[in-house]
Amino acid sequence: MVSLDDLTPPERSFASDNSAGVHPKILEAMSRANVGHQPAYGYDPCTARADAAFSELFGRDVHVFYVWNGTGANVLSLASLLGPAQAVICTSAAHIDVDETGAPERILGVKLIDVDTDGAKLKPEHIEAQTYALGNEHHAQPGVVSITQSTELGTLYSVEEIATLSETAHRNGMTMHLDGARIANATVALGGTTDVLRSFTVDAGIDVVSFGGTKNGMMYGEAVVFLDRDLAKHAIYLRKQITQLPSKMRFISAQFEAMLADDLWLDNAAHSNAMAVLLHERTASIPGLTPGSAPKVNALFPSLTRSAIVALQRWCPFYDWDMATDTVRWMTSWDTTEADIARFGDGVENVLESHTEIS
Amino acid sequence: MVSLDDLTPPERSFASDNSAGVHPKILEAMSRANVGHQPAYGYDPCTARADAAFSELFGRDVHVFYVWNGTGANVLSLASLLGPAQAVICTSAAHIDVDETGAPERILGVKLIDVDTDGAKLKPEHIEAQTYALGNEHHAQPGVVSITQSTELGTLYSVEEIATLSETAHRNGMTMHLDGARIANATVALGGTTDVLRSFTVDAGIDVVSFGGTKNGMMYGEAVVFLDRDLAKHAIYLRKQITQLPSKMRFISAQFEAMLADDLWLDNAAHSNAMAVLLHERTASIPGLTPGSAPKVNALFPSLTRSAIVALQRWCPFYDWDMATDTVRWMTSWDTTEADIARFGDGVENVLESHTEIS
Amino acid sequence: MVSLDDLTPPERSFASDNSAGVHPKILEAMSRANVGHQPAYGYDPCTARADAAFSELFGRDVHVFYVWNGTGANVLSLASLLGPAQAVICTSAAHIDVDETGAPERILGVKLIDVDTDGAKLKPEHIEAQTYALGNEHHAQPGVVSITQSTELGTLYSVEEIATLSETAHRNGMTMHLDGARIANATVALGGTTDVLRSFTVDAGIDVVSFGGTKNGMMYGEAVVFLDRDLAKHAIYLRKQITQLPSKMRFISAQFEAMLADDLWLDNAAHSNAMAVLLHERTASIPGLTPGSAPKVNALFPSLTRSAIVALQRWCPFYDWDMATDTVRWMTSWDTTEADIARFGDGVENVLESHTEIS
Amino acid sequence: MVSLDDLTPPERSFASDNSAGVHPKILEAMSRANVGHQPAYGYDPCTARADAAFSELFGRDVHVFYVWNGTGANVLSLASLLGPAQAVICTSAAHIDVDETGAPERILGVKLIDVDTDGAKLKPEHIEAQTYALGNEHHAQPGVVSITQSTELGTLYSVEEIATLSETAHRNGMTMHLDGARIANATVALGGTTDVLRSFTVDAGIDVVSFGGTKNGMMYGEAVVFLDRDLAKHAIYLRKQITQLPSKMRFISAQFEAMLADDLWLDNAAHSNAMAVLLHERTASIPGLTPGSAPKVNALFPSLTRSAIVALQRWCPFYDWDMATDTVRWMTSWDTTEADIARFGDGVENVLESHTEIS
Repeated sequence: MVSLDDLTPPERSFASDNSAGVHPKILEAMSRANVGHQPAYGYDPCTARADAAFSELFGRDVHVFYVWNGTGANVLSLASLLGPAQAVICTSAAHIDVDETGAPERILGVKLIDVDTDGAKLKPEHIEAQTYALGNEHHAQPGVVSITQSTELGTLYSVEEIATLSETAHRNGMTMHLDGARIANATVALGGTTDVLRSFTVDAGIDVVSFGGTKNGMMYGEAVVFLDRDLAKHAIYLRKQITQLPSKMRFISAQFEAMLADDLWLDNAAHSNAMAVLLHERTASIPGLTPGSAPKVNALFPSLTRSAIVALQRWCPFYDWDMATDTVRWMTSWDTTEADIARFGDGVENVLESHTEIS
Repeated sequence: MVSLDDLTPPERSFASDNSAGVHPKILEAMSRANVGHQPAYGYDPCTARADAAFSELFGRDVHVFYVWNGTGANVLSLASLLGPAQAVICTSAAHIDVDETGAPERILGVKLIDVDTDGAKLKPEHIEAQTYALGNEHHAQPGVVSITQSTELGTLYSVEEIATLSETAHRNGMTMHLDGARIANATVALGGTTDVLRSFTVDAGIDVVSFGGTKNGMMYGEAVVFLDRDLAKHAIYLRKQITQLPSKMRFISAQFEAMLADDLWLDNAAHSNAMAVLLHERTASIPGLTPGSAPKVNALFPSLTRSAIVALQRWCPFYDWDMATDTVRWMTSWDTTEADIARFGDGVENVLESHTEIS
Repeated sequence: MVSLDDLTPPERSFASDNSAGVHPKILEAMSRANVGHQPAYGYDPCTARADAAFSELFGRDVHVFYVWNGTGANVLSLASLLGPAQAVICTSAAHIDVDETGAPERILGVKLIDVDTDGAKLKPEHIEAQTYALGNEHHAQPGVVSITQSTELGTLYSVEEIATLSETAHRNGMTMHLDGARIANATVALGGTTDVLRSFTVDAGIDVVSFGGTKNGMMYGEAVVFLDRDLAKHAIYLRKQITQLPSKMRFISAQFEAMLADDLWLDNAAHSNAMAVLLHERTASIPGLTPGSAPKVNALFPSLTRSAIVALQRWCPFYDWDMATDTVRWMTSWDTTEADIARFGDGVENVLESHTEIS
Repeated sequence: MVSLDDLTPPERSFASDNSAGVHPKILEAMSRANVGHQPAYGYDPCTARADAAFSELFGRDVHVFYVWNGTGANVLSLASLLGPAQAVICTSAAHIDVDETGAPERILGVKLIDVDTDGAKLKPEHIEAQTYALGNEHHAQPGVVSITQSTELGTLYSVEEIATLSETAHRNGMTMHLDGARIANATVALGGTTDVLRSFTVDAGIDVVSFGGTKNGMMYGEAVVFLDRDLAKHAIYLRKQITQLPSKMRFISAQFEAMLADDLWLDNAAHSNAMAVLLHERTASIPGLTPGSAPKVNALFPSLTRSAIVALQRWCPFYDWDMATDTVRWMTSWDTTEADIARFGDGVENVLESHTEIS
């Protein structure tokens, strides 16, 4: 019988969209930006063009602050929105809550009110349930609602769901932050047009977006987009204060300029999402594997036996998701190929044949 | 008479080494790193190679943490060194004190004890003067001494001066941080060899270095180098917590790998320093200009009349340094050319001829 | 029929042990301390005597820091225990989590990992469940376990339960904090002797205790007791830094000296606990009232109809506990009298007769 | 010859007004407040009366927040005034800068821009000199000016000086905080009437006052008085969040009620100030002593030989002020008597006769 070691692993792993490199068009744009001297800190023409592209994207005069990474984007967003003694409502699966090593708490001194939810999706009643604290001096005052689209579990809010959350938040004097580390994948999943993007952000009452770039084929860089410019008035100082001001800014803005030109941001995400569907289709019915839901964006959450997981991970890296249920995460990216999926599918099939355990 | 507008301005300004682009070898290294998937967050072979290069550079097994920018490097350094209720002693010209929008205070909750000094250089007596607070519960406890080499004013500490500062700090239970945003320029100014670097860091008792890259021809990225590995044990968590963990790490480490290979870091700084000397020589004796000291690194601080400054800045950008004395800063970089200096010199000469004011 | 307005309300409400005044012996001790000048900040003989009394109480050489209030005691405890990038594990009913307006997050920059539990009691598996984060740079590192005895819901940990929690925490490199805002009531409930106190603190592996005074008949003042003196080495600075250093310290230590002399702290709590039992017995079988569990300490949580609650609160103040279930909190204190209970019982009976609603 | 040991030391030391006890009228007021149950956290009638007394004192509807101590009062004041990324301008002798163990930095994450001054008095040009930073993202934004009246060096601002500072601050978009730990002594020194108090606070453009109680004969407690009520809207939450909310509030407000009734606050300070003048007169011409300026409030700063200082401190405690110049601080308080001064004067005379050193 053929063993896993006899099979050639995929050229690209399914570990993370952070393991992928940089899209060629992005890298070319960075090279093109490397000409002569430019004013530092964003006062260069390339940054002005990227700003204009974002305003065109959202269909209004937005205020954009480019930052280094996703944690920085989220911390800057929250720093700009939070008032004195206020707290953030989020889910207990939120990246800001569990995957940022307590950055919001340390840098902002803020309490995160993290709510257990189904599928990492906040509901209006979760917001309502926290309003008891408003006006009570013994409790941090809920001031910001932060949601993630697509969520940390690969699920999606509908346009209506976000609109209702925003309405609930605003009615209670709170503002809305959207962590869009994978906003491109979400946009594609909901229809894949600029109108779709606007429908679940600007039109749905979102105030500030962490607009992801790195996971979608950029080298580094995220954009904090203030849909409501009035909320941005301290962000210029806060960005520097939280260590998120890039000096040679043109190399971030050049990436975003390239991303937003010719819908590269959507193309990359569309490819990544499609590859996830393909991987799901290739593996869902392999005996011994319990597939998760059909992927909406670029992550699958199947379950396998522990020994199969271990063997596969040695062969082609990916992450455990829930050790208790032997659920793993397989993540595609902008550069995943059909050949990668074919090879990986063969590997899964091979390993499950040989590792079928008798319980 | 020929007016300034008739002269062609330099291709590169004298505003900042942050206005310069990326050295071609660095950009090539980044392109080379852009192959396939790599583990994120620094668990890739390129980062391992850069780590090894740093250990070779310092002649000991150092622990390196790559971060986004200089403010991040300084905040991570201090975060790692500071104990409960401790304060940092620095000069009142220190970048951490005046040019980071209060990042150390906000993120670390730390008091900076900033001392007025000559030439932005701390002296042992400044440290001794703060020891009165040790053991007194009403005062933040001086715990870290932070110096900058080369300093914010373009001056240099001698090896002996740093060694004495370190001895004073350590004798009083404090640790030593060196902000080396321009450590390459300082190394060149003191002799330009690896031994020189070691002499004023490892051998002089420095505990942690913020090792600059961006200002010396990189696109982004700085390295926090723990010369004493024992002090690094929490840095892995602190880096993420202060928003300074790059996901696609290979693109920073590839830059540093290229920098340290074939002494590119020294070559870039040597060029930049030499250009500053050239600019000083070209302009020092122009009537109407009061030159600053001959430059040790890559910045000049001459004085001119206000109207000459304004005219020149419109023609070729640079920064005011002290409005009260009409002192400006002219900064060279790794890519400044002799032609740039020739043109700029002509411009200065022209403008001072026409703007000589009668007082 | 007699209406509630015809009945004389109790002289003392059942709102909170914070509504009670100061025990006469405490007030006398404060007056006695008011003689001449004494060194400020705790360097006075009275504070030395209170320190000695605490060491005698716990049967070892403890290190005590007197502070203003319970939030301050908890923040100082956690500040002393937390290392860099560490988090606190607590229940989602913990006072530090929900009743301190985010003080730990703001002052300490710390993440509270709050766990949903039965009866506000943490279990070893809750600690074990968080150990996945240890060593992972993307997560705040669980470093301190904080429990409350008696809990915010009036429940109690057994000695064995605390010992097992401590063993679990220590085995995973964490320390143990006990919020003892009502530690006297807990001690009484578990047997009422010094040995009992030691059994669930020193002997059960607790490292630091917030030892409550205010709710048990003092005017103000709590004590942070380091059972492990090694953990106290920064507390002297941290106390001042978090605004919790009383200048005229003798007036707090005099209160504690009086509290610990002749077991006043146990007598006060015993009385308060006994009054809660009496109130439970008087009201549990009144038609229309759903009693909570028999009280272990000094709080009852019965349910009544909304209209009955409103009428009663207007007549004699107490707090809503859970509006969804019309559960209220009746709290006794060191000065509650049998006459207060008799009157209150009559009032409850009266109001439930007249407010029985037809559903 | 008679030695110092043969002389009876004063009954009260000259160490600090924090070493003094509590004025009998204050203690009586606290006892009177100890009747029955009262709503906690300031919702009691006594606190309402104290609030009204403060509004009457300042001649307008002020908003008062009672807190535990001076550091807490200052931190709450600044917390209420500071906007995002803002800094505080103060002198380098300010209590907030050097005597609070970095509490503002830790709790507020704020930069203190501390200016060297003559006599601990800020001047308008110190404020103007910081305006260069306004609008520059690389610098913390000066947002609050904090002055101390009477200052940490026992000096006084005139009404005009404060008005000019306020005008300068407000013109530049900053707010004014006055640390009035010894505001009563200052009021007395400037004329001793309510009108005088108003002249250098409300009428001079001060926005928020830390109104001291403890050093003027109270047991504990300070009041943060918002002269501009609009600035107080978050203070109710911030007070709890920074650990400064007293539960049994009536015992602070009862003290302030007694203080403001019948001008006790002015009488205590007038006595204390007068005793300082008497001590100055008794000692200024003793051979071997270099007197400081005649005291304006309740502190003297004379210089003596080191051996005389040591001998005197052993006999009757007081603090060194500047070891380099052998300057000490002698502080009087509300309870200093003429007999205390007579005895202390004799001691100084005796010790200087026997300790006159030959240089």
